[in-house]
Amino acid sequence: MKSEIMSVGTELLLGQLVDTNAPYLAESLSNLGIDVYWISQVGDNQERMTQALRRGWDRSDLIVISGGLGPTEDDLTREAIADLLGEQMEVKPDLEAELRAFFVRRGRSMPERNVKQATLIPSAQAIPNPIGTAPGWWVQRDGRIIVAMPGVPVEMKRMWEQMVVPRLARAAGSGIIFSRTLKILGLGESWVEDELRELTHSSNPTLATYAKQDGIHVRVTAKAENQEDASRMVAAVEAEVRRILGEHVYGVDDETVSDAVGRLLAKCGTTLGVMESCTFGELSSSLGSSLEGRQQLVGALVAPDEGLLRHFGVEPEMIATHGMLSEETVGAMATAARAHLKTDLGLAVVCGMEGGQESGQRFGVACCGVHGPRGIAATTNRYTTTERDLRRRAVLDAMDLLRRLLLADCQD
Amino acid sequence: MKSEIMSVGTELLLGQLVDTNAPYLAESLSNLGIDVYWISQVGDNQERMTQALRRGWDRSDLIVISGGLGPTEDDLTREAIADLLGEQMEVKPDLEAELRAFFVRRGRSMPERNVKQATLIPSAQAIPNPIGTAPGWWVQRDGRIIVAMPGVPVEMKRMWEQMVVPRLARAAGSGIIFSRTLKILGLGESWVEDELRELTHSSNPTLATYAKQDGIHVRVTAKAENQEDASRMVAAVEAEVRRILGEHVYGVDDETVSDAVGRLLAKCGTTLGVMESCTFGELSSSLGSSLEGRQQLVGALVAPDEGLLRHFGVEPEMIATHGMLSEETVGAMATAARAHLKTDLGLAVVCGMEGGQESGQRFGVACCGVHGPRGIAATTNRYTTTERDLRRRAVLDAMDLLRRLLLADCQD
Repeated sequence: MKSEIMSVGTELLLGQLVDTNAPYLAESLSNLGIDVYWISQVGDNQERMTQALRRGWDRSDLIVISGGLGPTEDDLTREAIADLLGEQMEVKPDLEAELRAFFVRRGRSMPERNVKQATLIPSAQAIPNPIGTAPGWWVQRDGRIIVAMPGVPVEMKRMWEQMVVPRLARAAGSGIIFSRTLKILGLGESWVEDELRELTHSSNPTLATYAKQDGIHVRVTAKAENQEDASRMVAAVEAEVRRILGEHVYGVDDETVSDAVGRLLAKCGTTLGVMESCTFGELSSSLGSSLEGRQQLVGALVAPDEGLLRHFGVEPEMIATHGMLSEETVGAMATAARAHLKTDLGLAVVCGMEGGQESGQRFGVACCGVHGPRGIAATTNRYTTTERDLRRRAVLDAMDLLRRLLLADCQD
Repeated sequence: MKSEIMSVGTELLLGQLVDTNAPYLAESLSNLGIDVYWISQVGDNQERMTQALRRGWDRSDLIVISGGLGPTEDDLTREAIADLLGEQMEVKPDLEAELRAFFVRRGRSMPERNVKQATLIPSAQAIPNPIGTAPGWWVQRDGRIIVAMPGVPVEMKRMWEQMVVPRLARAAGSGIIFSRTLKILGLGESWVEDELRELTHSSNPTLATYAKQDGIHVRVTAKAENQEDASRMVAAVEAEVRRILGEHVYGVDDETVSDAVGRLLAKCGTTLGVMESCTFGELSSSLGSSLEGRQQLVGALVAPDEGLLRHFGVEPEMIATHGMLSEETVGAMATAARAHLKTDLGLAVVCGMEGGQESGQRFGVACCGVHGPRGIAATTNRYTTTERDLRRRAVLDAMDLLRRLLLADCQD
């Protein structure tokens, strides 16, 4: 079954509203094993809506629409569907009675224009909307289905989950889709793709890589008769990816780097102290965003300049000899954090832009250091990026350094 | 000029990614006075991409594309454009040299397949991408324009603003739309709407209010022949809004609360020290996200528990008597931050969830305090919300308290 999604509303074309309905519906359809080939946003304009519907009718088996079912003249989804199919809209007495009752319950009388929310065409059935005035339309003709729902996300989602999904699942027939996303740090996208090339040739499960803000995502997706088979197929590929990429896989699905670090800190019973400069608390607040990280993080010292670093116990000679942006200084900061906050581990990060004058090209440098019972470990990374983005990357680098050390030091 | 927007990527059709590029571009095009008639999301599939481009070429004067310019086999935007126009892609030696230099700067060698990012067709010019490997394409033929940019939002936005908008503004010609967004904290949306009701009846300039994460936004939009007239029309309404809402207007357009606070700190020459607990560095990193804020913020102490608060100089009796979640304790924290970090002002925040057992209703409490030469000022706010969202609100509350005190104390 080929499907497409249409979101209706001029606000979408003006950029005043981000369309979150379409991705919600797309994910749900994909879980039902229904392929989504097209998504589009269309304005409140009957000609363009009918045009879009006609195209959808030609190329898809199922069109899912949200928006345009309100009572005003701008709400034209019903009119466009009637136009497409050459059918007449008629007021249905039972729907009108329900609509009037809805207003009575709210202690108001129904504005007359709302009566168009009680109309149907011969090929349409009403989909009840218990929390709003607009019922949806389930339209079935010539082997095709159109589902039209209100645009308000809470009304749409309720109608979709309770009334539409069960019906579509029956219409779409057997089979389910299951996927897991493995998240990777410390490797480039091309490198990951090259290493996993053999696995990408499989058509079930499929494997796809994406470069994201928090590293490379590798998504493994299987189609099967039932959940058990799909899970087993995904697990086999996941094991192979983990064998190839090793400790670079830091998490699965919604797990963040902070979650991964927090989990390891809690498992090892390790307390952590942080000192950061250019990142102004971003490292600390990232660690604090994980529940377990929050419990192991004893405190953080944000020291943007040399004076305060000295105050917190970083030796001035260290900075004078090696400069702020060095593994030596960041190591001394980790040591000072550990001593000052009396923790098992100290974690520190510094970053800044370098270059420029001669080369014309500025790049960012991020140095991270950890001090623990085994001494100091430090890394330096260079990025061609903006200052703001450099801070984000420096925080990721610091968390990933800590994560890999914890992995090595504290296995069960 | 009729335009349409296409976002490319199979993740969009699977609902794994919300398309924020399209609304960003839609808003920007609308500000340029260019009508957007269609938005669509297309998968990484050359046949369907070419089909979508062909339709766009027939009905629009301008097609703006983001995504599909990466180095992998799935990145097919260039191929689809070449296919549409029947032109051949060729590697350009100057683009290839730049690309190789990009990898050299990162200390890596270029994977050979990346060379496709150095190709053009005869109708295309490269749009430089200073922060990524993929240059954009500016394609002009038969009175139509296609702009293709990378899908990574930070790369796309930079390319769009710096390279594409100036060129499009020239191409789009007469008539402009200009708008400014005034941002408000400390007032509810209904209150703002009621106060501004008279102004919303005007059709040019129009005025609209939106509830956003960082307060209420009031958007004033004027259409005029030229920028001067439009600016003047918007300025008159802005003055009226400011007269009505006063100091609650904290910023305009992209200005954040951090920017507003940073600007005031810099103007008054005031240095700031921060102490925070439950927010784990979020307050400090928010202040650090503004350039001026960064210069005035001497340091921050993140002390999630009582022990560390004592270590930083908060008196234990204060906490024992009033509890952690109190204006007294947060005031003492502000005092301690000021003393410990030797700053003009100390700013502190604590927050936590309360209630539950009997009422069944849990709510969040945020206490903020500032200590300066005039003594301590503190506020308490209650929210029905989640723990994560409470931290965000607590940070906003703290910044807004500081902002209003600075406004009162330091006028020029």
